[in-house]
Amino acid sequence: MVCKACFEVGIKLGALFHQFLGVPISFENVDLIEKTIESCVKLQPYVVDVKVEVDRKTLEEKLSRLGYTTLSPEMLKVEVVVEVENVKVRGTLKWVEEMKYPYMDFEVISF
Amino acid sequence: MVCKACFEVGIKLGALFHQFLGVPISFENVDLIEKTIESCVKLQPYVVDVKVEVDRKTLEEKLSRLGYTTLSPEMLKVEVVVEVENVKVRGTLKWVEEMKYPYMDFEVISF
Amino acid sequence: MVCKACFEVGIKLGALFHQFLGVPISFENVDLIEKTIESCVKLQPYVVDVKVEVDRKTLEEKLSRLGYTTLSPEMLKVEVVVEVENVKVRGTLKWVEEMKYPYMDFEVISF
Amino acid sequence: MVCKACFEVGIKLGALFHQFLGVPISFENVDLIEKTIESCVKLQPYVVDVKVEVDRKTLEEKLSRLGYTTLSPEMLKVEVVVEVENVKVRGTLKWVEEMKYPYMDFEVISF
Repeated sequence: MVCKACFEVGIKLGALFHQFLGVPISFENVDLIEKTIESCVKLQPYVVDVKVEVDRKTLEEKLSRLGYTTLSPEMLKVEVVVEVENVKVRGTLKWVEEMKYPYMDFEVISF
Repeated sequence: MVCKACFEVGIKLGALFHQFLGVPISFENVDLIEKTIESCVKLQPYVVDVKVEVDRKTLEEKLSRLGYTTLSPEMLKVEVVVEVENVKVRGTLKWVEEMKYPYMDFEVISF
Repeated sequence: MVCKACFEVGIKLGALFHQFLGVPISFENVDLIEKTIESCVKLQPYVVDVKVEVDRKTLEEKLSRLGYTTLSPEMLKVEVVVEVENVKVRGTLKWVEEMKYPYMDFEVISF
Repeated sequence: MVCKACFEVGIKLGALFHQFLGVPISFENVDLIEKTIESCVKLQPYVVDVKVEVDRKTLEEKLSRLGYTTLSPEMLKVEVVVEVENVKVRGTLKWVEEMKYPYMDFEVISF
């Protein structure tokens, strides 16, 4: 069940990252975007908790002269918890500047 | 200006179609998805109005045994109005079953 | 290491599914699409093997009157193998018609 | 017909931009990615020519410590020509650094 939970949390992180990159975003709809991504993750099997944050500082830096930009890997910070028969695993996604990479990791939090 | 308005409305329809296909969706978040797509289109230049509808009947038919599905071309109905220096053009997207195609069209509504 | 390998293979399946849904496809470029998706998966960490198949029968059924369609969940069949320190896990994705769902699964093949 | 051609070229630019952002890319598969995007655009109605270039300098700068990155707006340079009843329109997409924006434009080249 631990393996299954790790597999499932990996799916959720890979899925949301590649689904939502490119979404038009600004300070006007950033709250809505976060809430919507969370709603999409929650629909998926085994998910018991999810928190999506778009980094406002990075968003501000990326804003175009037209006042918006598109969601980029540098902005996303995510935490997803899945539960498979009492095994809980937390998956995380965050941009690591030194690696120039959206690093995904996991931690078994109960089993 | 008419050409420019037609060009701009085409961009908006092509963009939203390819950005949001695949989004996890159910009756729980369909209102939110519609509102979010609208918020994304509104950020883009020249847009003065937008209406996104996900067809509930198609959504219901497509629901998996897990209670959700992913946004597919058959579900989307969209109307976007752009305005470029007093020229208004309305672009539309809707699934045409006989063509098995998400047909996009436009109409100059004032100039 | 088994958990890590399961996590990683989950990421790959979730990622490719949500990245490539919606891609314009026909019999003219289907081989190229398969090869390209495989090339994208191979770039990612721990991947040692990947096979992507677009079901030709489903593709044919889905073709629009214009001779092409967009990649949909029903068409995709994928196998990805990751290796993390001698642990190999095979992840699979295929459409299950009875569930109306793109089912993802995994199997530990050596450890 | 000029308006129709402008509308159609807008669709193609908006579509490809939002479909392919996020694709895993490196020097190993960049040629393939360009060719594949072109193949997808060519399937669409009215397209008579298309040229997709991923900027190698930007690609190199964006490469993560893992040797690949994901396709981002800064990398894309595209030219698409559509023809609607003898009217040809060329649409272009390129990153404009001063605007921090992927600028799309068009030009009627024969009518």
